Amino acid sequence: MSDTKITAIQDEYAEDFAHCYGCGRLNEEGHHFRTVWHGEKTYTEYEPDSKHTAIPGFVYGGVIASLIDCHGTGSASLALHRKNGFEPGSGEEPPRFVTASLHVDYLKPTPQGITLKAVGEVEEIHPKKFKVNIEVTADDVVCAKGTVMAVVMPSSFGK
Amino acid sequence: MSDTKITAIQDEYAEDFAHCYGCGRLNEEGHHFRTVWHGEKTYTEYEPDSKHTAIPGFVYGGVIASLIDCHGTGSASLALHRKNGFEPGSGEEPPRFVTASLHVDYLKPTPQGITLKAVGEVEEIHPKKFKVNIEVTADDVVCAKGTVMAVVMPSSFGK
Repeated sequence: MSDTKITAIQDEYAEDFAHCYGCGRLNEEGHHFRTVWHGEKTYTEYEPDSKHTAIPGFVYGGVIASLIDCHGTGSASLALHRKNGFEPGSGEEPPRFVTASLHVDYLKPTPQGITLKAVGEVEEIHPKKFKVNIEVTADDVVCAKGTVMAVVMPSSFGK
Repeated sequence: MSDTKITAIQDEYAEDFAHCYGCGRLNEEGHHFRTVWHGEKTYTEYEPDSKHTAIPGFVYGGVIASLIDCHGTGSASLALHRKNGFEPGSGEEPPRFVTASLHVDYLKPTPQGITLKAVGEVEEIHPKKFKVNIEVTADDVVCAKGTVMAVVMPSSFGK
């Protein structure tokens, strides 16, 4: 699938929350991860840049961790938004999550030059805390698995 | 402390393994993380760029995960190199590790504009597998804790 014509959850984050280096549409130098529904699962695709090297030919693990991180918070936002009765494209501002914890198992070296696909399953732990289990594939090979615990951004964040 | 005059483990990685976006000295656009001994602990310092934003004023979690990732593999390399009888600066090529798993707990929003300090403790799990427990501080406040399971890069890596 291609997500280019579907509204992503990040497309409707409030402007104050749209500067994330991973997924902020207003961060000119960031990765611009965009997370959408794909059936009951969540989906983000991304082709790392040639500079994002681990050893030549393979993708840097920190970029894979970044993809999993923002895919996790975006997936949690999609899920709570849907629970609240909204879908991306409604124009309603989605809830913004932050990452409480991130876990990544690197299963195989991830080849460069291929669009990576992150697919997530979201589970509500309690109303403000969601767990997202994620697989990252390259050419249908699972290269990494991750888990993100995402919590609704507290209004006190950073204050 | 400042690590600028101390030889870091990454300074002596073989050229083929020195292109990492996180810690490769030969990756012109990367973070250039450099990991050194500080007593029995390991140390990496890094000031994220202004673009590395989560929300304005705070550091993107994916960059903190990247710092923890490369600090973990660098720390494991320091430890095995020492076990083999070498210190950075000897000119001997250090062993190169890859990340098997990465875990990060984000404890507090991490302020931008401050040099982050990653401090690690290394434990040998078996001769080719090391566990590194890491704290990342900003102005002496622990903002994140991480664990990296690092394994000696197999000679078959990516083949």
